[in-house]
Amino acid sequence: MTPPIERLLIAGVGLIGGSLGGAARAAGLAREVVGFGRGEQNLTTALTRGLVDRVSRDAAAATGADVIVLAGPVAVTAALAAAFRPHARPGAVLTDVGSVKVEPVAAMEAAWAGVGPVVGAHPIAGSEASGAAAARVDLFRGRRCILTPTSTTPAAASRLVRTLWEGIGARVEEMPPPEHDELLARVSHLPHLVAYALVEALAGSGSAGRRPLDYAGPGLLDTTRIAASPAELWRDIALANRGPLAAAVAEFRTALDRLAALVAAGDAGALGAVLAHAAAVRRHLGQDD
Amino acid sequence: MTPPIERLLIAGVGLIGGSLGGAARAAGLAREVVGFGRGEQNLTTALTRGLVDRVSRDAAAATGADVIVLAGPVAVTAALAAAFRPHARPGAVLTDVGSVKVEPVAAMEAAWAGVGPVVGAHPIAGSEASGAAAARVDLFRGRRCILTPTSTTPAAASRLVRTLWEGIGARVEEMPPPEHDELLARVSHLPHLVAYALVEALAGSGSAGRRPLDYAGPGLLDTTRIAASPAELWRDIALANRGPLAAAVAEFRTALDRLAALVAAGDAGALGAVLAHAAAVRRHLGQDD
Repeated sequence: MTPPIERLLIAGVGLIGGSLGGAARAAGLAREVVGFGRGEQNLTTALTRGLVDRVSRDAAAATGADVIVLAGPVAVTAALAAAFRPHARPGAVLTDVGSVKVEPVAAMEAAWAGVGPVVGAHPIAGSEASGAAAARVDLFRGRRCILTPTSTTPAAASRLVRTLWEGIGARVEEMPPPEHDELLARVSHLPHLVAYALVEALAGSGSAGRRPLDYAGPGLLDTTRIAASPAELWRDIALANRGPLAAAVAEFRTALDRLAALVAAGDAGALGAVLAHAAAVRRHLGQDD
Repeated sequence: MTPPIERLLIAGVGLIGGSLGGAARAAGLAREVVGFGRGEQNLTTALTRGLVDRVSRDAAAATGADVIVLAGPVAVTAALAAAFRPHARPGAVLTDVGSVKVEPVAAMEAAWAGVGPVVGAHPIAGSEASGAAAARVDLFRGRRCILTPTSTTPAAASRLVRTLWEGIGARVEEMPPPEHDELLARVSHLPHLVAYALVEALAGSGSAGRRPLDYAGPGLLDTTRIAASPAELWRDIALANRGPLAAAVAEFRTALDRLAALVAAGDAGALGAVLAHAAAVRRHLGQDD
């Protein structure tokens, strides 16, 4: 069977890019998967683990690629696109894996104007781990991948990127970039900010010479696990999506203040009802945990 | 070898009480382990699973017990002690497993005055699961158990309770009840309130007909896992420890507001520094995860 992609360039072969490369190779979705990156050691890991067919630290790696996936930090998205531009073949599809879409997709469209189509993509997967060493070819299996085509995205380009993600087992869905960012602010960026804040609050408190974090039980470890995520990555995501994130923080603060007020008032009935509602919602969620 | 305890009565054979009973039996710490409870079905599960030697729904089960562990909800602690009192033998040690200590220990001391010593205890273990069916004999292995003797607690009684917990693999430490409650407000009660608030905030939001919780990734599932915990249990814990919990919420709110302000200001340097600090702290914690 002819692979739908001739040459797939993945810029950034960390957890996400490396897993995508390995899965695309395993599924025969590209005749060649090329890994681009800055760090020699991580590239070597990706190559050794069979996540890519070959690696390069030169932007000329974009030559001949029909699909280019920007899988590095959201902050370097536009710069990378500009670096690949002189080497890109006409019509090359530029896509990404970033957790924020409005600004980065606009930046990619600007950087790629006159070259080829841009299709924003965001696979909802990952963990607090990072690097090619943490990549897994089944990372996206059964996970959602949101595509965010804009009014200028050709349907054929969306279809090709969809083929890639569905081919490695992801459940693909499309929505406009602003809706994606509103959604992800709530379901992902807010929980990260909360987890970081929880660790910071606990790290800064203490009494009688005891450090609370020394007494962390499994519940706190679960609640704060994502605070071990790479700080630079989440700094950039938070800054790139600050509007929707501020709204999500305000919603969360309202919910927390309400609970705290019920505790302070000793209102067992209302407090019990809210907690029971939240517990029922969470148990339902846990079914695909 | 003679067991250190003749008859161990465990009132409430759920996750904690059932695990304690099963572990005490396995370690030969009591000649007989009796399970007391209200629910026939859960008692039968505890008996069938070998967590206790026999079960009873009658307060007369306290007869002849030299150690009585109150392992039911913190709200019924004092009522249970009063119910056992007429049947208790002189000198019987009353202890518990509750997540709050100041008020419950005072209530137990009042209810047990003239009968025997009271030793507050809190094993830091558990999960969002509940009931005898979820009990595991290794639940406390390697976990901390905090004992909270007061000025009136005889050293011999503390020693006996310590023998029980150390005998099933827990790491025992002593501190006064107020210090325990300040500590646990931060390391356990606050994270629960935060997790419940996060679920509530997300359950109440949505746009374009999409429900954010349908898009939950592994990070959000981790962060909110403890919100699936029994609502009544955590309602009672929050209310019983409301002073220290309010202080912990205030500390958390300060940390979150600081992060939100840095995001709003676009202060990449300071935001990155705080997130990097939190990530380093959390990674260090994760080492015994």
